[in-house]
Amino acid sequence: MHKLVLIRHGESTWNLENRFTGWTDVDLTPTGVSQAMSAGKLLKAEGYEFDLAYTSVLKRAIHTLWYALDEMDCTWLPVQKSWRLNERHYGALQGLNKADMAQQYGDEQVLIWRRSYDTPPPALEANDPRGQRDDRRYAALTPDQVPLTECLKDTVARVLPFWNEVMAPAIQSGQRVVVAAHGNSIRALVKYLDNISEQDIVGLNIPNGIPLVYELDENLKPIRNYYLGDAEAAAKAAAAVASQGKA
Amino acid sequence: MHKLVLIRHGESTWNLENRFTGWTDVDLTPTGVSQAMSAGKLLKAEGYEFDLAYTSVLKRAIHTLWYALDEMDCTWLPVQKSWRLNERHYGALQGLNKADMAQQYGDEQVLIWRRSYDTPPPALEANDPRGQRDDRRYAALTPDQVPLTECLKDTVARVLPFWNEVMAPAIQSGQRVVVAAHGNSIRALVKYLDNISEQDIVGLNIPNGIPLVYELDENLKPIRNYYLGDAEAAAKAAAAVASQGKA
Repeated sequence: MHKLVLIRHGESTWNLENRFTGWTDVDLTPTGVSQAMSAGKLLKAEGYEFDLAYTSVLKRAIHTLWYALDEMDCTWLPVQKSWRLNERHYGALQGLNKADMAQQYGDEQVLIWRRSYDTPPPALEANDPRGQRDDRRYAALTPDQVPLTECLKDTVARVLPFWNEVMAPAIQSGQRVVVAAHGNSIRALVKYLDNISEQDIVGLNIPNGIPLVYELDENLKPIRNYYLGDAEAAAKAAAAVASQGKA
Repeated sequence: MHKLVLIRHGESTWNLENRFTGWTDVDLTPTGVSQAMSAGKLLKAEGYEFDLAYTSVLKRAIHTLWYALDEMDCTWLPVQKSWRLNERHYGALQGLNKADMAQQYGDEQVLIWRRSYDTPPPALEANDPRGQRDDRRYAALTPDQVPLTECLKDTVARVLPFWNEVMAPAIQSGQRVVVAAHGNSIRALVKYLDNISEQDIVGLNIPNGIPLVYELDENLKPIRNYYLGDAEAAAKAAAAVASQGKA
């Protein structure tokens, strides 16, 4: 039996300001730092040990991992960072306030932008300064790998190669893996692992900074999954994520 | 022309207490944190950009790298950690006070322990709790790779394979590399790069948290090297390192 631990980053400055973030590289708030530390403390208290960590190339996830590793006293763990674990790209909505958008376009339109499986938000213009054109960390990617917007289907499509080629072989070889990533890159993994339908994934929300444990069989099929710590708190936090896009 | 940047970790708690540290995994002091941040600020101000970072598996070096990367706003850089960049193992001296030892055994004996090229300090017993026997981060090593003590010659012998097999090919392929490591793993690299004799390396000291830049030709032969920032401050800091082992 394998265990895989997924952690959505702690609260970011744009979570706090209720803005669409996507690939914008905003940092954790003090609350986010404390959530990340709590995740590490919880994992340590429950006796979790890891051999390998994965995270995105966005600092809110990287810092979440760093704080968690510090709490577990295993800063020495190998860490692999990949753009494939980045948050879903939010296109031209990046930087805008979710509630403002809901007032302007209606709750339903915002829910479509936030949760539709295959309708992406309006795309960024190629030369929009909010884009990644001049960002060194994506310089090795092909132009079509750097999105101007993404729906969850697009995110699934770029997360899965990382699962299949990197994460799954590592887990099957016996490595104990922790991932610090984002709401939608984690939803992409969860959709795939639990074979959730395109309809049902809309209602799934991942709370910040609470370790989500997957127990997997030898073929990496999920046996069960659960949040560590206070289950009620996790459910409340997930519900709060769901309600962010309302006017 | 290639540039390689070497940073000795910021002041650690045992630097402050003037204790032999070696492979003991002590953390940075607040001064050490601020030195690490200064290193990052200096690199940023001077326009340095990196593609790749290396560090040891000891948290004083890892944290130094993290703080420096944060200041340069490139937490996303790939980081490879290796035990081969660890500090020299200080054997049975680990945890003991340098000045106490000097009073007990004389300045000369302590200088031999600290700086002799080929005389190691007394070895740890294999079952000494200060040893690495039960430390997960070294579990994949062969028993003879985990030292019970080291002289600088031993440190050079285990650092050089990392240079030859990992660092040198990366640098030659055009990657811009920053290393956060330790007084003696950096001395090992410097001895090799500058072809310093076994006699002369005794007098070479590396200050904490000041970026040491090597300009290397296409065959990785050094053209010149220099500390970033205030040269006088770097010289003073190196002299302070040299005098630590005196009664």
